Amino acid sequence: MSLSSTSRTRLTRHAERGRTDRADLYAVLDTGLVAHVGLVRDGAPVVLPMGYGRAGDTLYLHGSTGAGWARALHGAPVCVTVTHLDGIVYARSVFDHSMNYRCAIVHGESRLVTDPGETDSALKAITEQLSPGSWSYARLPTKRELAATTVLAVDLAEASVKVRSGGPGDEPEDVAAGGRWAGVLPVQTSFGAPEPGLDLETGVDVPAHIRDRRG
Amino acid sequence: MSLSSTSRTRLTRHAERGRTDRADLYAVLDTGLVAHVGLVRDGAPVVLPMGYGRAGDTLYLHGSTGAGWARALHGAPVCVTVTHLDGIVYARSVFDHSMNYRCAIVHGESRLVTDPGETDSALKAITEQLSPGSWSYARLPTKRELAATTVLAVDLAEASVKVRSGGPGDEPEDVAAGGRWAGVLPVQTSFGAPEPGLDLETGVDVPAHIRDRRG
Repeated sequence: MSLSSTSRTRLTRHAERGRTDRADLYAVLDTGLVAHVGLVRDGAPVVLPMGYGRAGDTLYLHGSTGAGWARALHGAPVCVTVTHLDGIVYARSVFDHSMNYRCAIVHGESRLVTDPGETDSALKAITEQLSPGSWSYARLPTKRELAATTVLAVDLAEASVKVRSGGPGDEPEDVAAGGRWAGVLPVQTSFGAPEPGLDLETGVDVPAHIRDRRG
Repeated sequence: MSLSSTSRTRLTRHAERGRTDRADLYAVLDTGLVAHVGLVRDGAPVVLPMGYGRAGDTLYLHGSTGAGWARALHGAPVCVTVTHLDGIVYARSVFDHSMNYRCAIVHGESRLVTDPGETDSALKAITEQLSPGSWSYARLPTKRELAATTVLAVDLAEASVKVRSGGPGDEPEDVAAGGRWAGVLPVQTSFGAPEPGLDLETGVDVPAHIRDRRG
């Protein structure tokens, strides 16, 4: 199934980097940890980092009911961007320096989630995106906690995916001139050793879903 | 010197995570690689990932003169957000799960840079942010390349910095209940081994500024 092509998702620069398969969108979203969420307040853009989750063709965000951005987003246009940086591309020329990356940009209007069943699956998706295994290991939300949480949905109906990979694209004359190294310095995200909380009682081992987590 | 406090930069949630020293803003910006840049197009937000640089109290962005976002940003309101994810905070409850992070959010209007001297220092700042050492090692931009590049400036006049660190903040009853691990899984960004370009001639060693780069 292909992604939509609209005036907002059609790539005007480096169209060869575009990916139009829905599986590519899922791949970028499902391996991310932080989304950068754009909204408009008083005519100006605001970009906030936050966790997110996906269930089928819906992306979910959540926040405190006291958060101004969450109130501002009810039914409002929103842009959700998830970016993976994979490498620094060192070219022979400054001009051809670049980055290798995978990026998904979702455009839509946010919808306030009020159905208890959808709220539950949305919070599960957000929790499992941030911390796979936590939904079955940790204590689940109480009614009071649910009442303090705003959940917003964005349909994955209009989105673009852009990927750059591979080495530098130097000009032929720069390659011919020789003498300068050119290539890619990979950028990797990984997890360190788990650090127990200061208030953790003795005798509680790090569970496997945290101990064995890989980036 | 302190950061401004305006309606846009005043934190309404977790104000204790705010940092108001300008040095904190520089620290977040100067160690980042990708900014998420928000603009408004046809009334809707758009969030794009891109490289950036800082020189004094000015943040610089650049793009192709053919890029629609760059044209849309001339003199327009912009939001530039740089986020470092430092850890996944596993709490005993799903509700208290969180992230450790450092985030800077800059609000302003973008200004088209036309002065050749400022263009030069802006491109140097952007290059050195992405790839320290490249400005003196790589071939510098030609007049034709400069003509194909749009440079935009954003004053660092209105910005907020938010930092979360440390362990989970569980409810006392969840701590007392015991039996669940709680703590932080650190998230680290690092560089892998440099990968030479396919068109690199033999005999060109990886220069020290790339070989010895640390995250």
